[in-house]
Amino acid sequence: MQPFDTVIRNARVVTAADTFTSDIGIRDGRIAALGFDLPAGAREIDAKGRHVTPGGIDSHVHLDQPTGDGSVMADDFLSGTVSAACGGTTTVIPFACQEKGKSLRAAVEDYHGRAGEKPVIDYAFHLIVTDPTPEVLRDELPALIAEGYTSFKIYMTYDALKLSDREILDTLSVARREGAMVMLHAENADCIAWLTERLLAAGHTAPRYHATSRPMLVEREATHRAIALAELVDVPILIVHVSGREAVEQIRWAQSNGLKVYAETCPQYLFLTADSLGCDDSFEGAKCICSPPPRDKANQQVIWDGLENGSFEVFSSDHAPFRYDGPGGKKAHGEQVSFDQVANGIPGVETRMALLWSEGVRTGRITPQSFVALTSTNAAKLYGLYPRKGSIAIGSDADLVIWDEGQTFHLDNDRLHHNVDYTPYAGMHLSAWPAMTLSRGDVVWDGEQPRGDAGRGQFLPCARPEPAKPRRRQTEIPM
Amino acid sequence: MQPFDTVIRNARVVTAADTFTSDIGIRDGRIAALGFDLPAGAREIDAKGRHVTPGGIDSHVHLDQPTGDGSVMADDFLSGTVSAACGGTTTVIPFACQEKGKSLRAAVEDYHGRAGEKPVIDYAFHLIVTDPTPEVLRDELPALIAEGYTSFKIYMTYDALKLSDREILDTLSVARREGAMVMLHAENADCIAWLTERLLAAGHTAPRYHATSRPMLVEREATHRAIALAELVDVPILIVHVSGREAVEQIRWAQSNGLKVYAETCPQYLFLTADSLGCDDSFEGAKCICSPPPRDKANQQVIWDGLENGSFEVFSSDHAPFRYDGPGGKKAHGEQVSFDQVANGIPGVETRMALLWSEGVRTGRITPQSFVALTSTNAAKLYGLYPRKGSIAIGSDADLVIWDEGQTFHLDNDRLHHNVDYTPYAGMHLSAWPAMTLSRGDVVWDGEQPRGDAGRGQFLPCARPEPAKPRRRQTEIPM
Amino acid sequence: MQPFDTVIRNARVVTAADTFTSDIGIRDGRIAALGFDLPAGAREIDAKGRHVTPGGIDSHVHLDQPTGDGSVMADDFLSGTVSAACGGTTTVIPFACQEKGKSLRAAVEDYHGRAGEKPVIDYAFHLIVTDPTPEVLRDELPALIAEGYTSFKIYMTYDALKLSDREILDTLSVARREGAMVMLHAENADCIAWLTERLLAAGHTAPRYHATSRPMLVEREATHRAIALAELVDVPILIVHVSGREAVEQIRWAQSNGLKVYAETCPQYLFLTADSLGCDDSFEGAKCICSPPPRDKANQQVIWDGLENGSFEVFSSDHAPFRYDGPGGKKAHGEQVSFDQVANGIPGVETRMALLWSEGVRTGRITPQSFVALTSTNAAKLYGLYPRKGSIAIGSDADLVIWDEGQTFHLDNDRLHHNVDYTPYAGMHLSAWPAMTLSRGDVVWDGEQPRGDAGRGQFLPCARPEPAKPRRRQTEIPM
Amino acid sequence: MQPFDTVIRNARVVTAADTFTSDIGIRDGRIAALGFDLPAGAREIDAKGRHVTPGGIDSHVHLDQPTGDGSVMADDFLSGTVSAACGGTTTVIPFACQEKGKSLRAAVEDYHGRAGEKPVIDYAFHLIVTDPTPEVLRDELPALIAEGYTSFKIYMTYDALKLSDREILDTLSVARREGAMVMLHAENADCIAWLTERLLAAGHTAPRYHATSRPMLVEREATHRAIALAELVDVPILIVHVSGREAVEQIRWAQSNGLKVYAETCPQYLFLTADSLGCDDSFEGAKCICSPPPRDKANQQVIWDGLENGSFEVFSSDHAPFRYDGPGGKKAHGEQVSFDQVANGIPGVETRMALLWSEGVRTGRITPQSFVALTSTNAAKLYGLYPRKGSIAIGSDADLVIWDEGQTFHLDNDRLHHNVDYTPYAGMHLSAWPAMTLSRGDVVWDGEQPRGDAGRGQFLPCARPEPAKPRRRQTEIPM
Repeated sequence: MQPFDTVIRNARVVTAADTFTSDIGIRDGRIAALGFDLPAGAREIDAKGRHVTPGGIDSHVHLDQPTGDGSVMADDFLSGTVSAACGGTTTVIPFACQEKGKSLRAAVEDYHGRAGEKPVIDYAFHLIVTDPTPEVLRDELPALIAEGYTSFKIYMTYDALKLSDREILDTLSVARREGAMVMLHAENADCIAWLTERLLAAGHTAPRYHATSRPMLVEREATHRAIALAELVDVPILIVHVSGREAVEQIRWAQSNGLKVYAETCPQYLFLTADSLGCDDSFEGAKCICSPPPRDKANQQVIWDGLENGSFEVFSSDHAPFRYDGPGGKKAHGEQVSFDQVANGIPGVETRMALLWSEGVRTGRITPQSFVALTSTNAAKLYGLYPRKGSIAIGSDADLVIWDEGQTFHLDNDRLHHNVDYTPYAGMHLSAWPAMTLSRGDVVWDGEQPRGDAGRGQFLPCARPEPAKPRRRQTEIPM
Repeated sequence: MQPFDTVIRNARVVTAADTFTSDIGIRDGRIAALGFDLPAGAREIDAKGRHVTPGGIDSHVHLDQPTGDGSVMADDFLSGTVSAACGGTTTVIPFACQEKGKSLRAAVEDYHGRAGEKPVIDYAFHLIVTDPTPEVLRDELPALIAEGYTSFKIYMTYDALKLSDREILDTLSVARREGAMVMLHAENADCIAWLTERLLAAGHTAPRYHATSRPMLVEREATHRAIALAELVDVPILIVHVSGREAVEQIRWAQSNGLKVYAETCPQYLFLTADSLGCDDSFEGAKCICSPPPRDKANQQVIWDGLENGSFEVFSSDHAPFRYDGPGGKKAHGEQVSFDQVANGIPGVETRMALLWSEGVRTGRITPQSFVALTSTNAAKLYGLYPRKGSIAIGSDADLVIWDEGQTFHLDNDRLHHNVDYTPYAGMHLSAWPAMTLSRGDVVWDGEQPRGDAGRGQFLPCARPEPAKPRRRQTEIPM
Repeated sequence: MQPFDTVIRNARVVTAADTFTSDIGIRDGRIAALGFDLPAGAREIDAKGRHVTPGGIDSHVHLDQPTGDGSVMADDFLSGTVSAACGGTTTVIPFACQEKGKSLRAAVEDYHGRAGEKPVIDYAFHLIVTDPTPEVLRDELPALIAEGYTSFKIYMTYDALKLSDREILDTLSVARREGAMVMLHAENADCIAWLTERLLAAGHTAPRYHATSRPMLVEREATHRAIALAELVDVPILIVHVSGREAVEQIRWAQSNGLKVYAETCPQYLFLTADSLGCDDSFEGAKCICSPPPRDKANQQVIWDGLENGSFEVFSSDHAPFRYDGPGGKKAHGEQVSFDQVANGIPGVETRMALLWSEGVRTGRITPQSFVALTSTNAAKLYGLYPRKGSIAIGSDADLVIWDEGQTFHLDNDRLHHNVDYTPYAGMHLSAWPAMTLSRGDVVWDGEQPRGDAGRGQFLPCARPEPAKPRRRQTEIPM
Repeated sequence: MQPFDTVIRNARVVTAADTFTSDIGIRDGRIAALGFDLPAGAREIDAKGRHVTPGGIDSHVHLDQPTGDGSVMADDFLSGTVSAACGGTTTVIPFACQEKGKSLRAAVEDYHGRAGEKPVIDYAFHLIVTDPTPEVLRDELPALIAEGYTSFKIYMTYDALKLSDREILDTLSVARREGAMVMLHAENADCIAWLTERLLAAGHTAPRYHATSRPMLVEREATHRAIALAELVDVPILIVHVSGREAVEQIRWAQSNGLKVYAETCPQYLFLTADSLGCDDSFEGAKCICSPPPRDKANQQVIWDGLENGSFEVFSSDHAPFRYDGPGGKKAHGEQVSFDQVANGIPGVETRMALLWSEGVRTGRITPQSFVALTSTNAAKLYGLYPRKGSIAIGSDADLVIWDEGQTFHLDNDRLHHNVDYTPYAGMHLSAWPAMTLSRGDVVWDGEQPRGDAGRGQFLPCARPEPAKPRRRQTEIPM
């Protein structure tokens, strides 16, 4: 047997299916062997008594993405990936967002430039399609899919981003033909605009009215519509950041009826509520402004139930980092600004894994295997990174998290490495935190310090997703 | 007791609640007395052994309405109301359709001109709002509602008619504030356009592809969306011409959850199927082109179930009369024309009542009282014509149908008085037909001939609908 | 025109369909004429400005029914019918309960004896089938149905009353063949027994644990089972005293799928909650012990929604009168007795109508017509008393309530005429109360005093119910 | 590195989460290493290009089980386990069935005697609780659970086996306290008896009436009831052999609402229909008599959808082997015997794996990983055999199947090794079949011949199941 670069000894290895004790032999950045009495590695790591999971894949992350409204994302591809690594995530999939009137190709090139020599962990890109011109649909998308940009996101809200139903159908149709995966942000734009206008006219401008302006039904309606459009085109879709019961019911209806509708949720829907945006008109609630807004305790339970019963495939952060103080941040326009003018998004790339391990696995709500599926394996499969990413299996990249458990980790912003000056989860006491993160066999977080060099992260071209087979429904409709 | 103009003797009077035997005393066009041994009337009618129901209210009728696509409605306010009267309908509510860029007031004036001295029975108007400008919303609609135009229809499809979600919200908001009733035509325009384009590109142009271009999910999606918009505004709505299971499920979900969502269906969804549009590419199927298209036998059963279990309030015809032959008709552009170029609509104002009495009441599927509710009373209440119309009650207009039952009525177009050269129901054998129709005490159909004079019909200003109370839900949203 | 015995002038007549102003001419105890300028009656009653509704039919009433557990019903056919009349009810349908091992015929004779010369209003009997022996099924039930006992109740709980699934099927099968209506008390007996045993073992004996011992799922399960059994036999059923969401969902599922499943609810599910049984261990809560127990505010809303959207046909009292103090009453065994030993039931025959008119009609939740349908007409039809009872129509019995509205009626037990020493609704302020009740034209409540003579009430043989047609489903199963 | 007993080279290893290429090193009957360039094994097996999955766990198998009705199971622990091994199954969990009036302990001893020195593969036992006396509940069950009999089955039908609701609650209560897993056979006994009696009385005795006697609603009702009972006790359950839509809907409702309700289905519900029991009265259909009966094509699709969307945890055979000809077989009482007298059950232990790999995996309906989860891993976890069984992981037993794919396997009974003279799937053409089966590293099927010695199979005491945590719902009910 050839020598190993690194051997992790006596790990409690967790995959999306299994938990077993084994040494892990790493060679050339990949997992080369599992078993006991493996030959010595150049580096030996003792993991006795410790869970070792695949490194997280955060498939919903915004990094260095221009917003068009004056706010500025606080994390670029360096601070964002460092923060991710320190939180146990070894792959991020940020977005390359098309500017209306410009080409998707230009967006891809722009974002590769933004990434540059910064990433400390591996990364891929989702495309955001905002302007599906005939050229985009006919030429660019197929070419980019072939080159490894196999997933794209469609917005049903935000003036600068949203597509009409017709444009969605056209874009889904390309996804079906080319075997790509489509993510949908499902909120009804007109409802939000109508409510916002009325709220502002009534002087209801405080951050908490952000939640009022996007009630559950706004998400339910768009979720139902997204499902109907995908059903018509007969193509799988994934609904991102699902926040509560009414949307979950639509998704489970679709799944019950044989439609390939996948769903994602995020920590904010498990741990925050609308009250996190403020019970009075203070501006502090701006820290928790994100869309869809967090709901209430009953909806949190529905999301937990969905994680347990298989409604969700993916647990991501929707990291959208804005500082509270400082230029481009939440308070950039002062504290009197109305909720719709506040930078929209919350940070979370570093806290995602520990929150779910602590509050999901250790409380017995979900199994360790479900944790791995939700935070890593399923995303790898859905977005074409599998089997290189997403598992502890022979031949896979040695992207690993060794967990520290059983003591109390007080969660405050000092613990974190993002470039944001707050965390929405400050004050929580967790029972787990990554002790070490390895990316392709390199330690990128040693429990004390980030360790990876800027630029060591590699761009990952994505294959076509595994489960994205259409339903092969008989239809007279020519596609 | 003052003398009666007319006394109907020994009638089996049916209301939406009751069936009882009584004489009916009519004076000054109104029902003045019920009971036995009423004093003699100037005219005596023997109804012994015969059911007498309130005259039908057909609340979904298109008469003399310009189409904008070269097709021409075959029935004006004379032939249309004569046909209605001969079929047992004593009130029609056609539409006054706003032209985009013009005022609603202009539409109302135009349609009053079209009615002119033609109607033989009473009539009101629904407005069709196609261009909800600030002026329309702020001034015209409230004024027209106050003047007796208390219901309006919103289209979610057809380029010339459809409103955006935002416009729908604005219009619903006026309805809420002013207490008007809103009817929605729920089909997703973008889906239809997308499918149609693909079908035509594939050479699928025959009439039967009209059904393919508007599958059930297109109606389901828009129904869900309409419900969500109404839920947001907190206002009752009525979904028109519901065709099958998936839409009914949405409506019952809303009703189960306390939303004031009413629904209408039509004979075509009980007696026609998609096969009525042709099993091959022959053009004859054009006769049954209407929207939504008829579905299949299983969906027919769902509609029958909905009539029985209270899902539907209204059974109307959606009479949209186009000749098969002749100028402006289905074949106006030849038989090679694609399905989307064919005049869209079917006649039905004269057959509606007899179809439901024969196939609903006499088969035991629904009670006589349900028949009255569905064909007359509920529409009167929803559209503000009650108690003048919609019942056999003291003080109500003497709008009555005396039924001939038990023999076989072969249904073909020769029996009918519309100006259309076919009926979709040709060949059916019914077991009931109106023996006599009275409008405000005047015989307008004597079982052999239409009898009412043109122009005797009166315009009916509508009150605000009875049940149109909002749910008074607590909300922070200023309306 | 022949002279009238009584004429009520200028009434706001309400039926299950209509509201109109009219005089009401009464002759020989029946409604002989409606209209204005009716000839004078021997008695003239001015109802100007007052609603006049059909007298209530309380189709779920227990009078003078032995309990077998030592408790004693406080109301017999005199006090019970006097109380009913004073509350606007003109027909009661108490139960004739078969004793296990004895014949149904014996029960019928026994209860006729109990009624004797006591009733002041008309009455019919439901049978309670507790022992469906072959003789009962083959001979007695068909004979009794033919004699006018056309409805029977089946219990799924209570050891002395309950039938097995097999017995239910056998009994439903007779109902199908003979066209009778079956009422089901749907609670799972085994679950209740199992819970009760555990609660008692844990020392949880206070009245409030009655609610704990019969949680919603116990009712949901039995409701689902009852529906399945009726679906198998293909026969209509009516689920009595439905208390909340989970049962309503089962019922609406059945109705959506074309099954003839009717439902009844009662005032206790609109106006009481489990807290009415006590928030601590005090015995006072025994006053509100009934089965199923009242639930919570959210379930109250579901019941209101069900009244509005047509889920329910019947609103009855389930009057089961036990005194709080005194022999045979709630405290008969002392205040230390466990909840399962307390006399089970609450009084309500006199308050039912006013509660619903005040809190349902006058608040705008339901229409006056729905009130009439729910409190009178539908029961008349379902139980074969229509058209003699249940409406204000020519030929119907002159059973009428003239309403006093707009002032405040403080509800306490002094106002009531039952023989029970409390009312669960004490302390409520209502906005309506019957000003006068007429039974077959006789005043039996004049707003101050009960007026009818004992024994004037007539026994009403019931016809087969109107809507009890089976679904005529095609099946290979021989019935 | 220590030497291996066996090394399988270049396998396409499939687990419930992953697919990867690796050698598999086996030592002492366990999987000792995964990776490439493993040292040579005493035995080398080339699996290049071949999928290698965990050996199947058939967790629903009847072997040598007395029936009490004169029929005789054709497979004992030898022929049954040989057949299993040849079909890729390496663990069976047959039942030890309590005889009413006797102890569970006696049953366990009896079945150990039956197994004796026969099994060629490993086995555990589920208990069947038919007589939950206080002794059984208090003493025997806890003791047996502690000894490794951690799952038990409850029947809701069959006179000799069924428990009352109360007995089910008592038994579930023990399962909750002791952490055992309960399987439920959900069909309503009374409905079946009632229907059967009527069918026989009408002369409908042919095998196909077996399906008529157990319609879908009979299963739906019992499924709903089982869920309600488990909800009350707050304990996980598993519904066995789910056959179609109405039961699946109940199960998904429960899962949506956070209940731990697991479900199993079987090949007969994917590949047979009620027509398999005969379209006429011929006796041949007796070969496919099993309970619940197969349904129709639409229900097959629902079962496929359920396998895809996570509704089901387990895919088992419900192998219940009776010969068609010969003593104790289907024809034991002649061909004129009524359907209820025919031996009830079908064989399937050998065909289960290949049917699902061929028709599920190779058609793209489910992933290879889902196959492994459904046929092996999930059962191992639910029944406490994990991690020894159910995966290809370090330390697990080397129970493996090497697959032969891509050629056509004509399925007829000659291919099979059970002691039954037919297979219900005769005539199918499969695209996969096990090329080799290993049990703890021993070849027990070499693609040509069964190879394992009788008695080599070991009894497996089961741990408490992994997911069987109660929901920890707050309740006042003492458990």
